[in-house]
Amino acid sequence: MSSGVNGVSRVGRVLTLDNMNPNVKRLEYAVRGPIVQRAVQLEKELKEGVKKPFTEVIKANIGDAHAMGQKPITFLRQVLALCAYPDLLEDNRFPEDAKQRAQRILQACGGNSLGAYSASQGIECIRQDAARYIQKRDGGIPSNPDNIYLSTGASDAIVTMLKLLVAGEGRERTGVMISVPQYPLYSAALADLAAVQINYYLDEDKCWGLDVTELRRSLAAARQHCNPRALCIINPGNPTGQVQSRQCIEDVIRFAKEEHLFLMADEVYQDNIYAEGCAFHSFKKVLFEMGPEYSDAVELASFHSTSKCYMGECGFRGGYMEVINLDPEVKVQLTKLVSVRLCPPVSGQALLDLVVNPPQPEEPSYETFMKERNAVLADLKAKAQLTEQYFNAVPGITCNPVQGAMYTFPRVTLPQKAIELAKKEGQAPDMLYCMKLLEETGICLVPGSGFGQREGTYHFRMTILPPAEKLKVVLEKIGKFHQQFTQEFS
Amino acid sequence: MSSGVNGVSRVGRVLTLDNMNPNVKRLEYAVRGPIVQRAVQLEKELKEGVKKPFTEVIKANIGDAHAMGQKPITFLRQVLALCAYPDLLEDNRFPEDAKQRAQRILQACGGNSLGAYSASQGIECIRQDAARYIQKRDGGIPSNPDNIYLSTGASDAIVTMLKLLVAGEGRERTGVMISVPQYPLYSAALADLAAVQINYYLDEDKCWGLDVTELRRSLAAARQHCNPRALCIINPGNPTGQVQSRQCIEDVIRFAKEEHLFLMADEVYQDNIYAEGCAFHSFKKVLFEMGPEYSDAVELASFHSTSKCYMGECGFRGGYMEVINLDPEVKVQLTKLVSVRLCPPVSGQALLDLVVNPPQPEEPSYETFMKERNAVLADLKAKAQLTEQYFNAVPGITCNPVQGAMYTFPRVTLPQKAIELAKKEGQAPDMLYCMKLLEETGICLVPGSGFGQREGTYHFRMTILPPAEKLKVVLEKIGKFHQQFTQEFS
Repeated sequence: MSSGVNGVSRVGRVLTLDNMNPNVKRLEYAVRGPIVQRAVQLEKELKEGVKKPFTEVIKANIGDAHAMGQKPITFLRQVLALCAYPDLLEDNRFPEDAKQRAQRILQACGGNSLGAYSASQGIECIRQDAARYIQKRDGGIPSNPDNIYLSTGASDAIVTMLKLLVAGEGRERTGVMISVPQYPLYSAALADLAAVQINYYLDEDKCWGLDVTELRRSLAAARQHCNPRALCIINPGNPTGQVQSRQCIEDVIRFAKEEHLFLMADEVYQDNIYAEGCAFHSFKKVLFEMGPEYSDAVELASFHSTSKCYMGECGFRGGYMEVINLDPEVKVQLTKLVSVRLCPPVSGQALLDLVVNPPQPEEPSYETFMKERNAVLADLKAKAQLTEQYFNAVPGITCNPVQGAMYTFPRVTLPQKAIELAKKEGQAPDMLYCMKLLEETGICLVPGSGFGQREGTYHFRMTILPPAEKLKVVLEKIGKFHQQFTQEFS
Repeated sequence: MSSGVNGVSRVGRVLTLDNMNPNVKRLEYAVRGPIVQRAVQLEKELKEGVKKPFTEVIKANIGDAHAMGQKPITFLRQVLALCAYPDLLEDNRFPEDAKQRAQRILQACGGNSLGAYSASQGIECIRQDAARYIQKRDGGIPSNPDNIYLSTGASDAIVTMLKLLVAGEGRERTGVMISVPQYPLYSAALADLAAVQINYYLDEDKCWGLDVTELRRSLAAARQHCNPRALCIINPGNPTGQVQSRQCIEDVIRFAKEEHLFLMADEVYQDNIYAEGCAFHSFKKVLFEMGPEYSDAVELASFHSTSKCYMGECGFRGGYMEVINLDPEVKVQLTKLVSVRLCPPVSGQALLDLVVNPPQPEEPSYETFMKERNAVLADLKAKAQLTEQYFNAVPGITCNPVQGAMYTFPRVTLPQKAIELAKKEGQAPDMLYCMKLLEETGICLVPGSGFGQREGTYHFRMTILPPAEKLKVVLEKIGKFHQQFTQEFS
């Protein structure tokens, strides 16, 4: 037996659960947590011929459109194939506009290859295209390509921005306001960075709306023990599916200015708007429409991705962040920080270029592109309505309208006996519920406790992505399960 | 003027250089530092027609093969195009083995699409292929796919592994041993994680060899102020180009066991071996050949990438890490940690699959594949020799053999006056040298100070990637510049 100079044991493993990074130990990411691991195991068992009360595991736990059968948009994939293997530029099966896009992207790549590193901030002409896209989206408010950072999905840029903000110790440690329910990337990143997570609650009774009074309460409480510096908003909401009104966004911006908070706007579902009367308003647009008092002062980072909307191209890990009013000296530091990872995947950058620079009406691919795009969005809209209607007809389940994004976050009434059993087993009651659902039906959902919810309420998150026919079956199975579960524990 | 509850100012920007994350401020990444930014600026000026003493900027600062004109390997790109746009599977221009590989990869993707998220650890059949590749490479020593984590380039996995290891405060803070010179990803990651960087020096006089005596000196010194827990090795070396002998690797493993250190082996240049008598020995293989006393005890993570070797596919950000003897509980934490970022880019995973499962002798693409692969490696070998010979013929430059990898790290004798001028300007003397070289010749190198070097010695890192004809010009220009520089400051 020997022991180190610092009294550290030198027997057994160097790296153990006891002596590893405590921040990592603390972090949780429910979207891929134990329930998903069990789902993967069940799939394997099914393949091996083990008998189950179901023939298929349906993963409604994650916004993974292609995995749920959504077909890739033809134009995007044509250009990617041309970029990967430029010999195909000679092939007349590809439309001219696809070839032109591919050539333009390749010309911007070192050695005309997707295999070269790009600039750390992303390929310049793609950042220019992103700026034009933002400018058009926001009714002409200028966007500067120098403020755009391409990223490895939106997650990468969100973590990077949070990392810049974290400083101080004890009561001066950076606090970051996130919604409850939230997308658990935020809580995981804050745990990893040892920053303070500040919860503000969305109002389930008001369609998961955001109320500034609640922001004030939350901030005042947090100021007692940390230094709140940033406010994160997800709009359209994940997991809640709400779409913020223009008025709400104005209120949030005013609040951020008054309270000296850095705004982070996660807007990856910006094309996923379904409810009548709802529209997507970018934080950037509203900020600039509020005039220079705000647009010259409030620091904002907004995030977009190739993974959601009509594309659903999660696997390519494309995304960007636009920063507004970021201190130029901090920008230098940001550029330095992203350069350590060299560059975001160049194929993801190429894909992003097509999203921000899609076929135009005069181009040969336009018609097919619009048809495919609109079909995906119309299908999601129909499924959003179907889901809401179905769940609200089940006794014990209530469900806000899925105004946008691709999830529903219904509230389930759980019998007291089930709650007690779960507590006895050291499990969240909605985890018990979801685990039982998985074992009995093969449907994989994420318990509300993985996103956060008001004490004593229980939810689950389900994507609306399964094909309509399968979605109906899923809804019916969940409805039936809920009734059985309620009976079993009553 | 207002001030926050915690006495924090609420005027001016929320996020400034003064109050941002101090770890980020501290980190440096020379490979994409100020000299590269100046190179990009010079390129723009040339494009705009500004007159310069050169017509082209040559970026020999980074191992970016395709940007330097190396052509992608046909087979890799054919399969990628087929995966991106599976309609091409009907096209008889593609060889059958490329189609089979593409179909196999797509079948392992959700919805048969590269656009679906994969498992966080990477696609299972690709991890199986990687395990088979490692097993074959290492003469049959078994590799378990469960120990393989696909990653976003090797950088991602290296940072993840370091993150797991960092814990403790003050004298108990994790220290990590890295070579000097080193690849600055390591120093940057350690700064970001606020871990303690422990330098051990490679011996320039012994062809940048690693000596265990120096490891012992370095470790003993570090134990006075931190808790050394890991030892990082880059073999073949970056920036130094040395290839470690089997004996040296054994010594390092013995040292790691004795001193209770976690081993991290960066082996991304494993196919890039040029010098007669040199061979690549993986740490894993040597570890297992040393018998169970070692192979059951020493914790090892080894890293590989699609960016180097004969592929040079940097832009796709493909890579993997194999972990050996990692505590099963820590492995659960590792899997959880990587799941927060969802998954590595799936196109990079697909590319990695082709690297670990290349065409076989009986397959139609084999011959072309081998021809292309061997041509790249033979070309690099010739350029490695050319570079060494040329530099050693220039008075004031000495250069170790480029045994492997894709860099040379020659030592330059700088005149005292130049050193004094640099110091007066608060600049590293080799930065002054490289900056002047860039302004006068358009050649972009990275000063040795960005990698670390013994006090009072000066170096630069240059890639051997430019095409042979251009490399000759580059070498001649550097030689001429060196003589002029020496005269100017004498």
